[in-house]
Amino acid sequence: MRCDEDIKQVIIIRNDLKMGKGKIASQAAHASLAAYKKVLSLDKKIVECWEENGSKKVVLKIESLDKLNEILRKLEDFNIPYVVIIDRGLTQVEPGTLTAVGIGPWLSESIDRVTRDLKLL
Amino acid sequence: MRCDEDIKQVIIIRNDLKMGKGKIASQAAHASLAAYKKVLSLDKKIVECWEENGSKKVVLKIESLDKLNEILRKLEDFNIPYVVIIDRGLTQVEPGTLTAVGIGPWLSESIDRVTRDLKLL
Repeated sequence: MRCDEDIKQVIIIRNDLKMGKGKIASQAAHASLAAYKKVLSLDKKIVECWEENGSKKVVLKIESLDKLNEILRKLEDFNIPYVVIIDRGLTQVEPGTLTAVGIGPWLSESIDRVTRDLKLL
Repeated sequence: MRCDEDIKQVIIIRNDLKMGKGKIASQAAHASLAAYKKVLSLDKKIVECWEENGSKKVVLKIESLDKLNEILRKLEDFNIPYVVIIDRGLTQVEPGTLTAVGIGPWLSESIDRVTRDLKLL
């Protein structure tokens, strides 16, 4: 792959959980770091290209777990690397709650096929 | 160092900038990932211990740049690794704005000496 392709990381936050902004920030950080490590183990070159171009990150919201599960199925179908963040539930949410998803860094074009209907958080 | 020491990553968000929650989430993700990479290059063992124990992350808030600069001076004094996140200012803040700081993962005891007066975001 060439470094002139658009690459980004997308973080999806469950907006239906009514997490406070500190909680959202920590879930986003977990998702970003875990997805980064996953992609680094799969495709170091794409991570390097992403970093060279400013490590673009976009945070989107989703309004239900059902809708999020649809997204996850599509990510599987398109073979796009992602991680799910499951909260231990010590604060604000029930234990085992899926709070956030980290996608990529990966080709923006591929990610957009899956997330194009989601809005910015 | 032994892996039974308490290690955490702390993210400090400028609360005076009135960023929206999506913006806060993206700045937190930038800070988390950049600080992680910095510490990884300095002390891989501390990162491994942190990961083994669940990659604890805490998000704090600060109410002014002056107060944040005091924190940065103390981090320097105590030799605690940190990164500052400077936003390009395409949305919500002026170009060149310091929006967030990522600290560690590092010994909680050391970080707490610097950040103990800050509240959770």
